[in-house]
Amino acid sequence: MNYNELFNEILRKRSYLCVGLDSDIRKIPQHLLETDDPVFEFNKAIVDATARYTIAYKPNLAFYECNGVAGWISLTKTIQYIQHMYPEIFIIADAKRGDIGNTSGLYARAFFETMKVDAITVAPYMGHDSVSPFLDYKNKWVILLALTSNKGADDFQYHSDNQQRLFESVLEKSQQWGDCNNMMYVVGATRAEMLSDVRKIVPKHFLLVPGVGAQGGSLHEVAQYGMNAKVGLLVNSSRNIIFADSSSNFDKVAGSEAEKMQREMSVLMKEIQGL
Amino acid sequence: MNYNELFNEILRKRSYLCVGLDSDIRKIPQHLLETDDPVFEFNKAIVDATARYTIAYKPNLAFYECNGVAGWISLTKTIQYIQHMYPEIFIIADAKRGDIGNTSGLYARAFFETMKVDAITVAPYMGHDSVSPFLDYKNKWVILLALTSNKGADDFQYHSDNQQRLFESVLEKSQQWGDCNNMMYVVGATRAEMLSDVRKIVPKHFLLVPGVGAQGGSLHEVAQYGMNAKVGLLVNSSRNIIFADSSSNFDKVAGSEAEKMQREMSVLMKEIQGL
Repeated sequence: MNYNELFNEILRKRSYLCVGLDSDIRKIPQHLLETDDPVFEFNKAIVDATARYTIAYKPNLAFYECNGVAGWISLTKTIQYIQHMYPEIFIIADAKRGDIGNTSGLYARAFFETMKVDAITVAPYMGHDSVSPFLDYKNKWVILLALTSNKGADDFQYHSDNQQRLFESVLEKSQQWGDCNNMMYVVGATRAEMLSDVRKIVPKHFLLVPGVGAQGGSLHEVAQYGMNAKVGLLVNSSRNIIFADSSSNFDKVAGSEAEKMQREMSVLMKEIQGL
Repeated sequence: MNYNELFNEILRKRSYLCVGLDSDIRKIPQHLLETDDPVFEFNKAIVDATARYTIAYKPNLAFYECNGVAGWISLTKTIQYIQHMYPEIFIIADAKRGDIGNTSGLYARAFFETMKVDAITVAPYMGHDSVSPFLDYKNKWVILLALTSNKGADDFQYHSDNQQRLFESVLEKSQQWGDCNNMMYVVGATRAEMLSDVRKIVPKHFLLVPGVGAQGGSLHEVAQYGMNAKVGLLVNSSRNIIFADSSSNFDKVAGSEAEKMQREMSVLMKEIQGL
């Protein structure tokens, strides 16, 4: 999916919601545990209930890897299900990978060829050759960690030489590697005011914004500081949607929560950018 | 495995060799491709031929993930095989994971409980809470990226505030999170002279040193700048050992290459530390 296709989907659905499929087997409704693949059954129901309000799904790999081979199967089936039923939806593997060049090339193969997702989150610590193999794929995206939503972000991301903090250096230097057509950045909603600093360096890029809801970030502030003329935001919500309810009604409740966010997003698109 | 057990194994085998199981299915000998699980059969033969010269095995996850579910199965079988046949050998999942606290906790579960490896490589960009969940496991190890062996290391790892370069800040700050009994650092052999700077900050810690051989680093320099009184080094070699030969004799040739390195290592232990 390219930049304009993504923007057009956002306009069509009036949403820039990304639903995080952080499908912790310890938290999914009891009655699903009797099925052959509880995590997949859970994801399928969540996807069916939320797809009309959703631009992107973001499975976080940790929630699958912790179940070993079975988890990897649940993940593969989930991705294939979304691709088959909702081919217009953008799929992000939240994997935070990154290694020396030839090894990153294999991660790119794993996610873009074997798994066929649209985007992968990548950690920037190892620099250019750890990122560039992912950029060799047409219509696929790198989502580079810039400023994350967790407390530990303070430890190194603000490490400052005389000109720049590290996250700013990541934003600036990585623009020599790719552009707004194949690269996005993770910027946490828990630091919404920082979005204005980020926008000074990357005005056009899409930003993937985690941390709204459970982690305390505000959608209103994210839109206010981060939205550009093409929206330029994918705002992620995980727990607040997928674990909103644990009864047999969990999917309907998740659908309502997604719809609530979509409506709020639609209002903000109108208010802030007249879209 | 704890610090002293690791040191005692190094003394017993007179080796600090880590063999990287970067078992690229496109490079393994033709005749294995007819078996049910070529990557596992390859690893099994390599392990049997090299185990007596080897302190640690380090499968890099990218080489398994790129084969999807099948790759995850090969990896699991490889780890179980090593644990069953050579329980004294240290196993490192070279996964370079790292995420917000609760998610890193799931990666820790994936690698330390489901897969039961001894150590995992972790990327430091997201700071304390992305690393600490791995440190909650007794006799398990975090191997934190400090100064990597690739060219892209220059992009951010030398980013310097007035006191410290980023990799030095990683070394220093992370000592508040763990100590030399549950934490090691990745320091690339391609920057062997930097090992003296690293040793000023972490004199006692084990260092995992990739980049000897195929990437151009020298074992002699690594030992000279990096060895401490308890050796404190795990020197990784991948391609130079596992792909030294592609005939049906590949395992024997790999064994000879590992033995050559072990002998060189033994001489250096004697010369440099009198061990």
